[in-house]
Amino acid sequence: MIDARLDAQLTFLVEVGKLKRIYRQSRLIHAPEERENDAEHSWQLALMVGLFGEYAEAGTDLLRTTRMLLIHDLVEIDAGDTFCYDAEGALDKRERECRAADRIFALLPEDQAADWRALWEEFEAGESAEARFANALDRLHPLMLNIHTGGPAWRANGVRADQVRERAAVIGRAAPRLAAVAEGWIREGIERGMLIDD
Amino acid sequence: MIDARLDAQLTFLVEVGKLKRIYRQSRLIHAPEERENDAEHSWQLALMVGLFGEYAEAGTDLLRTTRMLLIHDLVEIDAGDTFCYDAEGALDKRERECRAADRIFALLPEDQAADWRALWEEFEAGESAEARFANALDRLHPLMLNIHTGGPAWRANGVRADQVRERAAVIGRAAPRLAAVAEGWIREGIERGMLIDD
Repeated sequence: MIDARLDAQLTFLVEVGKLKRIYRQSRLIHAPEERENDAEHSWQLALMVGLFGEYAEAGTDLLRTTRMLLIHDLVEIDAGDTFCYDAEGALDKRERECRAADRIFALLPEDQAADWRALWEEFEAGESAEARFANALDRLHPLMLNIHTGGPAWRANGVRADQVRERAAVIGRAAPRLAAVAEGWIREGIERGMLIDD
Repeated sequence: MIDARLDAQLTFLVEVGKLKRIYRQSRLIHAPEERENDAEHSWQLALMVGLFGEYAEAGTDLLRTTRMLLIHDLVEIDAGDTFCYDAEGALDKRERECRAADRIFALLPEDQAADWRALWEEFEAGESAEARFANALDRLHPLMLNIHTGGPAWRANGVRADQVRERAAVIGRAAPRLAAVAEGWIREGIERGMLIDD
């Protein structure tokens, strides 16, 4: 009853469960001593698509954006989470993540492997309306977690406000209303000594 | 810059983060000593919509199904996770969950509150094609986790195969191809002594 196609899909589904134990720098708002994992992060981003969809560019395909966010961190199963202000880790991040994508998406049936891999590449390229909105939410979310937990990821890594602003710039291009939220949090981070302002 | 509408959306977003610390009976396949939480569960269900969408009834709206699954367990923030074979917990489950829905969705701007609450009620009713498919995935997922972790949730609660089959019946109505997967796991659960067969 279970053919090769369904068997491949189930193998993939079991494998991606590993995302539940890939930890990020962000702490949980309601359990600030604990780090968020990639599955929790991906769930909340996908929920943000519906919550904030009205601020995206007109015509943005919200199903495509959601699918993108649900899979955007799967490569971290092999490549691990690279902190966004880790300059050394950034050097070979793309190479590590491409190797991971080669292995993980190849578990899927051929047509889905090509489709999902392309979706991940689209997210990475950040050029389509959907990829821009997905990237904007992915940048906004850790700001929220940081500001509500006293900024541990920023403090521990000596992060500067201009670094955060540079990464947050994509929010302004995809959803200007949400960029105002990000800028408010950055100012609050400076005022409360979580971010270095130079 | 942040009006009352956006402020309400942000309040809701922070609140629903509590889902990350609502634990289920299911164990994690790749960390079987640990329980899965509702955020991890919701993420994987949403991903299953894209993975298994081809097995849903023709015309099923996959964005609506995904949105439904992303929010279907939010009520457990207040009501807690009621194990599906807990007869006593089932008695007031609906009442506890409705009270939770009243509070949680009301954090949203009025139009979204009504829309998201209706989406949750649609999932609960299980009548639309989207709700049937969403419920089918929600039934299939814990079977997978149980079978890959030695069936701890079944063993600890003395669950019988006929109870699991009764709950899994919705899979057959929504996605017959996936019902074959469920039945295969139930038989394996019996053979391996995880489920009582009477």
